[in-house]
Amino acid sequence: MMLTLPKLKVNRDRLDLSITELAEIGKLANGGVCRLAFSDADIKARELVKIWMKEAGMTVRTDAVGNIIGTYAGKEERIAALATGSHIDTVPIGGRYDGCLGVLAGIEVARVLQESQTRLRHPFEVIVFSDEENSVIGCKAIAGNAPKDPERYRRKDSTDIQTCLQRVGGDWDKLDTAQRDRSEIAAFVELHVEQGGVLEAKNKQIGIVTGIVGQYRYMVQIVGRPNHAGTTPMNVRKDALVAASQLVLVINRLGVETIGDQVATVGHLTVSPNGTNVVPALVNLSIDLRDLSEENLQYLITEIEKEAMAIAENTGTEITFDQKLHVLPTLAKPELMATIADVCKKLDLSYDYLPSRAGHDAQEVGRFTDMAMIFVPSRDGISHSEEEYTSSEQCAQGAEVLLQTILAMDKSY
Amino acid sequence: MMLTLPKLKVNRDRLDLSITELAEIGKLANGGVCRLAFSDADIKARELVKIWMKEAGMTVRTDAVGNIIGTYAGKEERIAALATGSHIDTVPIGGRYDGCLGVLAGIEVARVLQESQTRLRHPFEVIVFSDEENSVIGCKAIAGNAPKDPERYRRKDSTDIQTCLQRVGGDWDKLDTAQRDRSEIAAFVELHVEQGGVLEAKNKQIGIVTGIVGQYRYMVQIVGRPNHAGTTPMNVRKDALVAASQLVLVINRLGVETIGDQVATVGHLTVSPNGTNVVPALVNLSIDLRDLSEENLQYLITEIEKEAMAIAENTGTEITFDQKLHVLPTLAKPELMATIADVCKKLDLSYDYLPSRAGHDAQEVGRFTDMAMIFVPSRDGISHSEEEYTSSEQCAQGAEVLLQTILAMDKSY
Repeated sequence: MMLTLPKLKVNRDRLDLSITELAEIGKLANGGVCRLAFSDADIKARELVKIWMKEAGMTVRTDAVGNIIGTYAGKEERIAALATGSHIDTVPIGGRYDGCLGVLAGIEVARVLQESQTRLRHPFEVIVFSDEENSVIGCKAIAGNAPKDPERYRRKDSTDIQTCLQRVGGDWDKLDTAQRDRSEIAAFVELHVEQGGVLEAKNKQIGIVTGIVGQYRYMVQIVGRPNHAGTTPMNVRKDALVAASQLVLVINRLGVETIGDQVATVGHLTVSPNGTNVVPALVNLSIDLRDLSEENLQYLITEIEKEAMAIAENTGTEITFDQKLHVLPTLAKPELMATIADVCKKLDLSYDYLPSRAGHDAQEVGRFTDMAMIFVPSRDGISHSEEEYTSSEQCAQGAEVLLQTILAMDKSY
Repeated sequence: MMLTLPKLKVNRDRLDLSITELAEIGKLANGGVCRLAFSDADIKARELVKIWMKEAGMTVRTDAVGNIIGTYAGKEERIAALATGSHIDTVPIGGRYDGCLGVLAGIEVARVLQESQTRLRHPFEVIVFSDEENSVIGCKAIAGNAPKDPERYRRKDSTDIQTCLQRVGGDWDKLDTAQRDRSEIAAFVELHVEQGGVLEAKNKQIGIVTGIVGQYRYMVQIVGRPNHAGTTPMNVRKDALVAASQLVLVINRLGVETIGDQVATVGHLTVSPNGTNVVPALVNLSIDLRDLSEENLQYLITEIEKEAMAIAENTGTEITFDQKLHVLPTLAKPELMATIADVCKKLDLSYDYLPSRAGHDAQEVGRFTDMAMIFVPSRDGISHSEEEYTSSEQCAQGAEVLLQTILAMDKSY
């Protein structure tokens, strides 16, 4: 299928201005943003986004979990929407592109439609998902997968979820009403910065995401025996850190050597009592495994647990695994990937296919409807950092691909 | 040389009562003691010890670093003293025997001399050393080795050293006056609980310390690169924790496999940023090496640094070593060891020789005069814990060996 692209075009300067304005809310000293979900900054940013949606001719509503849903009405009323969107909350020291680009490019698409007096056949939705950086309650609730135990959403400052949701116009007691399905959203395409260095390394302008990796997260506890580091001979020690070090290297080796696209990380490790002169008695560490293949993930964790049993045996320690997260992979819809590729060709933008190794709102939406994602490069692969950077040209290229993809989808759906 | 032992004998119940009374000051819920140096509890305990010294016929003075020096006058005034002693400060959650036994057994020796109206040829000193559990300023100042930078002694609660010393009757500005030499102290014998499990494992009543191990302490910094744990392929990572894990295992292997009596410990390790989803960018870890052989310690650290260079190369990290402590081993005086062995035989107490792998006040005193140490067993080898326990019979056996050793030294010195 080759497309002839409509002459509509995103306004790079307008998009850039929106990104800059939004980044003023919760701005940090070195160009980054701190806009935690449900914070005053988040609320202020939500108000600004809602104003922009309305100015772009959209009707705006907020669902029970605080997702903001802007709708640019289509010619046909009874058919499912084409949707895009992302999030505007950030990590504690975040960048200005992660999430925001997807939301603002969606609004830019609506602005282009409005100024050109174009009306699609389908309703066009831009969704701002709640709390992507932490509980992912927004996209999970839309997919009908949000855990129903309110304690799971309690914030680090101990604020409960009902208080959080009410601050942004939601209502925990109506959680179920946020769920949507294929009859409402025919397909969802999310534009996002890559947050990795693959596109930059391959010198490609656009990434077409093949799927969003599944994720296993475990907390592992290793119990040894505290002893005086001076007086305890080597051969009677039960050193929890020696056991932990062996486990870290097993996990890394499996990550490096297993045939597959997995990543395997121990990012968190604490030692107790953590004194220079005490043999470590207790280590807690995290395991983070990601891959597009659920089968490979299962293989990896089975191998790791097997090796951990041998390590416990050899070091006289006790090792226990506690699963904290199990996210199934979500594959992108092949037809949508093909559409995006066609759009890139027409726009003369270089592209490549890659999996998304970070989680995104599209992962949950993709569980009930067709999903695709468009990536633009992150300089030096850096994200979740004040140094996060994607040029205004690259942002506009991503938004342009999003616009043309939506226009194409309006014909094919 | 075989000795005929004088008929003097320590009073087990009196010693036991003193241990129990002293443990009331800073008492913890589970039988332990918190009596940090220079705290109110330390000051209260010092006052009690000074009263006991005076009641035992000793003159008492406090030197510039707060060491309490009790002297039981000898027949001859111009000769150097025979000294014993230890400390009464504790770790934050400590036991009631570590340090206290050595001080209270010294006072018990004076009580026995007083009640039997015995006067030695030499002056007999009982020294309570300041802050053994932290800065070791007390014994270092007596040896003339105390660092002169006051900042090195600042407490965790930021109290400066002059404030600390003034609280216990000392004066930082007179630090140098605390130094003593061989012309003042002819020999020093310290009684202490073993703080390890060697005597218990060998079923021996008394340990004759062959020397106090030397100690190397390093802080190692490993600098990698922070990256998103999801989006960063395994082969481009610079994972500081993977490098650290390799180093921990190298250190443990050298500790276990090197021919020698060394112990090698990584007790402290911190990861930064320590997020489950971030590849570790920075690890700080401690290395603690101890052995009676300085040559072996040098070999070990050389090997560790060599291996660290290879690890840095393989992992793309930067590894730097910062030496924090270099304590030379102190060997016990062979003649004193022989005297203690003879005393044990006469008292029909089983004994064995062993190095002390923990630091003690005797280590510094041993740098300028003859030194020996007497150990009694610690149940399960546990110390620096509320569970620390040595029976009153074992304590009295140690004190008896101390008394008879001092009496024998009074003849040989």
